Amino acid sequence: MATRRFELTTLGTGAALPARGRFPTAQLLNVHEALYLVDCGEGTQERLRVAGVNFMRIGHIFISHLHGDHYLGLMGLLSSMHLLGRKNALHVHGPAELKQVIDLQMQVSGTYLRYPLHFQALPHKSGVLAMEDEHITVRLLALKHRVPCTGFVFRERSAPRHLRKDKLNLIPHFRRDAVKNGEDLRLENGTVIANVELTTDPSPQRSYAYCSDTAYEPALVPHVRDVDLLYHEATFTESLVKRAQETMHSTAFQAATLARDANVGHLLLGHFSSRYKSADELLHEAVAVFPRTSLSYEGGVFPVHERTTV
Amino acid sequence: MATRRFELTTLGTGAALPARGRFPTAQLLNVHEALYLVDCGEGTQERLRVAGVNFMRIGHIFISHLHGDHYLGLMGLLSSMHLLGRKNALHVHGPAELKQVIDLQMQVSGTYLRYPLHFQALPHKSGVLAMEDEHITVRLLALKHRVPCTGFVFRERSAPRHLRKDKLNLIPHFRRDAVKNGEDLRLENGTVIANVELTTDPSPQRSYAYCSDTAYEPALVPHVRDVDLLYHEATFTESLVKRAQETMHSTAFQAATLARDANVGHLLLGHFSSRYKSADELLHEAVAVFPRTSLSYEGGVFPVHERTTV
Repeated sequence: MATRRFELTTLGTGAALPARGRFPTAQLLNVHEALYLVDCGEGTQERLRVAGVNFMRIGHIFISHLHGDHYLGLMGLLSSMHLLGRKNALHVHGPAELKQVIDLQMQVSGTYLRYPLHFQALPHKSGVLAMEDEHITVRLLALKHRVPCTGFVFRERSAPRHLRKDKLNLIPHFRRDAVKNGEDLRLENGTVIANVELTTDPSPQRSYAYCSDTAYEPALVPHVRDVDLLYHEATFTESLVKRAQETMHSTAFQAATLARDANVGHLLLGHFSSRYKSADELLHEAVAVFPRTSLSYEGGVFPVHERTTV
Repeated sequence: MATRRFELTTLGTGAALPARGRFPTAQLLNVHEALYLVDCGEGTQERLRVAGVNFMRIGHIFISHLHGDHYLGLMGLLSSMHLLGRKNALHVHGPAELKQVIDLQMQVSGTYLRYPLHFQALPHKSGVLAMEDEHITVRLLALKHRVPCTGFVFRERSAPRHLRKDKLNLIPHFRRDAVKNGEDLRLENGTVIANVELTTDPSPQRSYAYCSDTAYEPALVPHVRDVDLLYHEATFTESLVKRAQETMHSTAFQAATLARDANVGHLLLGHFSSRYKSADELLHEAVAVFPRTSLSYEGGVFPVHERTTV
């Protein structure tokens, strides 16, 4: 069976000040063709168009915090969905105050959305299950920033076992779901065939964790342990660690330290300060601590693979 | 004397739904090197960068109304000015509710601007003098839209007369301002030299009027009469005049009719519906009524010339 899609597209990788071809933060997560948007900086609808994404398919939008570079594109996107005739419900998850910001702006523009907008106020508490649908579960991370800021762990839901093609003819249709769920098969003649003879292991539950914006926060380690892909902000190099502490951002060294301590599969860096013309300096600093590290970039596509190392 | 600059740059010429390479509304007006921003749709700071404009030099921002495609880029621009260390006061002129929208978003992001932000709530009344500085006066236009929407007439302030170079040696330094202001010159020996012998006419007071968004509104005619350049929205062609009426927008035919009736110098069309791949159709419709018409486009630069026709 072909692996189903679990893929991250980074649409904007800059810090608060857009410059040097970097845009404010926004990410698209595709899990089994269901689309989830993570943060929505100014211009996100334009970035989605450039990336060739049909944003009408987005079902859930997660907003980490209310600094402008993480949410100022939301109203424009909601409006465009409205103008394009969206009917399907949209779920927005974010800090409680975001609801006020949306409501006020809808009110002053005299806009009544044609589709249902469901808002979920997120608590600032690691481990809380924020939502689940048929594809994923989403748990929260209490990040450490100047305003309440929430990270997210997206995890594929446990999948059914795969039926072996060479045994399909043995399994009556009405028993297939039970066998996929791990039951043994009792034939009409009384013979019992063990489940392990009929099925192969389910696809692994891949996972992606999003940590931006945040100061270095070791308390996150148990909550992101062993995730397949960790996106962690790396606004500065270690030479500016003091500035990182003051502004409650992280250095590339700190991001890599967290990735190493949590034994993640792969680390993806982003939220680069506009002072860095190239982010290579940040990559070099991180790789020295945690080799399986990459830089995110505008339009970058990163498939999330199950762990190959332990 | 070289003519001083009076120049409009159209940064975004699309209607509510950004598409086809058009961006939401924003315009930069340069009068004698002072910069004024008119509307500020999502992504305006990016458009200003692309146009090579140093947006820190903008002193006044005018917001016509609170539909998202005319103001959603404001918070990002204010924030970037802050992050880039702006100290100079910024003046924002717009509907009263805009102040609430700004204040709420500053509050939830925990931001305190490092520069003074002066807000002026605009009344919805044609002819009101909204501001004047050393370069221009700005009067308001009560446009006709689904929410209160204000247009603007920017007019150069009356300029001093020019001293004739061949007569400069006759005029003592301490009398030059008086002569520029039209006074005759009395020499020490009692001779009086008429002002007309010493000066030439001042530069003409050029004018630019901005009308977007609005339904066709003949009541505007006396307020935009004889302006050198009129920007008027032309969301639809006349075949969709019913749709224009419902949404309180204008057709190209209507924009041209207003321009003709007000005897303006030149008409510039914009705010094109995303249904038009090319705006040529809108131009053809307008030119049949008012020949001195152009299409605005992203990054288009339009010097405002004094009238050559009457």
